[in-house]
Amino acid sequence: MYIIGEKINGSIPSMGQAIADRNADYIREMAKKQADAGATYIDCCASVNEGEVETLKWMIDIIQDACDTPICIDSPSPEVLVEVLDYIKKPGLCNSVSGEGNKIDLIFPKIADTKWKVVALLSDDTGIPKDAAGRIRVLNNIMAEAEKYGIAEDRIFIDPLVEMLCAAEDGIEVVIEVEKYIKEHYPDLHIICAVSNISYNLPYRKIVNQAFAAVAMWFGMDAAVMDPLNRDLRGTIYATEALMGEDFFCVEYIDAYREDIFGPVKKD
Amino acid sequence: MYIIGEKINGSIPSMGQAIADRNADYIREMAKKQADAGATYIDCCASVNEGEVETLKWMIDIIQDACDTPICIDSPSPEVLVEVLDYIKKPGLCNSVSGEGNKIDLIFPKIADTKWKVVALLSDDTGIPKDAAGRIRVLNNIMAEAEKYGIAEDRIFIDPLVEMLCAAEDGIEVVIEVEKYIKEHYPDLHIICAVSNISYNLPYRKIVNQAFAAVAMWFGMDAAVMDPLNRDLRGTIYATEALMGEDFFCVEYIDAYREDIFGPVKKD
Repeated sequence: MYIIGEKINGSIPSMGQAIADRNADYIREMAKKQADAGATYIDCCASVNEGEVETLKWMIDIIQDACDTPICIDSPSPEVLVEVLDYIKKPGLCNSVSGEGNKIDLIFPKIADTKWKVVALLSDDTGIPKDAAGRIRVLNNIMAEAEKYGIAEDRIFIDPLVEMLCAAEDGIEVVIEVEKYIKEHYPDLHIICAVSNISYNLPYRKIVNQAFAAVAMWFGMDAAVMDPLNRDLRGTIYATEALMGEDFFCVEYIDAYREDIFGPVKKD
Repeated sequence: MYIIGEKINGSIPSMGQAIADRNADYIREMAKKQADAGATYIDCCASVNEGEVETLKWMIDIIQDACDTPICIDSPSPEVLVEVLDYIKKPGLCNSVSGEGNKIDLIFPKIADTKWKVVALLSDDTGIPKDAAGRIRVLNNIMAEAEKYGIAEDRIFIDPLVEMLCAAEDGIEVVIEVEKYIKEHYPDLHIICAVSNISYNLPYRKIVNQAFAAVAMWFGMDAAVMDPLNRDLRGTIYATEALMGEDFFCVEYIDAYREDIFGPVKKD
């Protein structure tokens, strides 16, 4: 399971404040904590209106100084992504492209001959298609472009786009249908979800996030944008891998428990 | 979701002691607590070597006095079940038959023309078949017998038999395969699981139980043998129903939270 640590994102109020204050210590600590907890990538999103490139470079310096974990560079602007990509020492995850505007035209050639991986959201200029067929249309368009640029399936993390459950008419049927399609047609693609999106506006969000993670993993989700320090969600991921038959005799589940990744806190 | 309250079972040490001591207060309290928490059935299992019929009748009196919730009468002996069935005022759930011995021959004719429902385990005289094909063979045999006696599908709760994950080679693949078969061939059957069986011998069992419940429900489990006072498992069930599209706008999830069925405890 790929775990993309979500804590260094300017849209989180405390982090937004730390970025505005140029509070390097706060960002450094958050990078280190997430890396120590086992994040595969550290998301780095400025979420500022002006000076995004400069801000991201400042953040990237701090994260690269704090840990060796690769960065998931995160911006809504493909121009910004293209500009900061070369500034990052180690190839990471470029977050994100979609079927929207010129994103693919700018990002795909930039990463084609690198070791960068990329997140691709299943939305386009029409917005987020409401049904699975619409998202699959976007998916197929993105994959046709990826093929043009020679970007292999296993370098692409498809985000089927998780919407809040409290506004959904069919639960997570659309996400599951997209996952099934991906596993059938592009078996080497990764499937990434921002897990906590599912529980917006609901009470006791953790229980919804965990149930969602278990079901979404069963159908192929192998990457999660999440807080790596969320112990119960980490435990859910290990448990689900065992349920899926991917953890013989639960060795990894038991090891992770012993290593204090989930369960009652052992360390002080 | 059918919730079978599992707490009145003599194989639980504290309950076994209460039964041995003829501690009616303890059993009454456990019946009332489970009923108040919303159990659909109250399981009643003596788990004694001698005098099972007399013990069960004593327990049945207490439960029927404590609450109106129907009883899930639970014994490994079909003779005992047949003997105590008439003693129970309200038709409930007979737990259980299987392909083993004379269970079906005794129980099915007894309940055929009643409103009793029945749990059927997918084991037979060969034991618990290791693979899905073996359990499906037992299932088909049981369903052929049910048809003979005119017992409708929706009166039967099939238990695919959940075995401990830490000893499993393919995770819960067998359970899921059986569930898929049932939904395809006998869509009106209920599927019941003893949820906590999955986590025997593992640390932090709750997280495994919850992930299992979410996935098993997705594939058709609609009844759980569980502690109705297990708040996180109750929350998981409500959350999963919403994920499945069975709780429009999460109204039931939110109501259950407000009614203090899950989440941080509101009552004193």
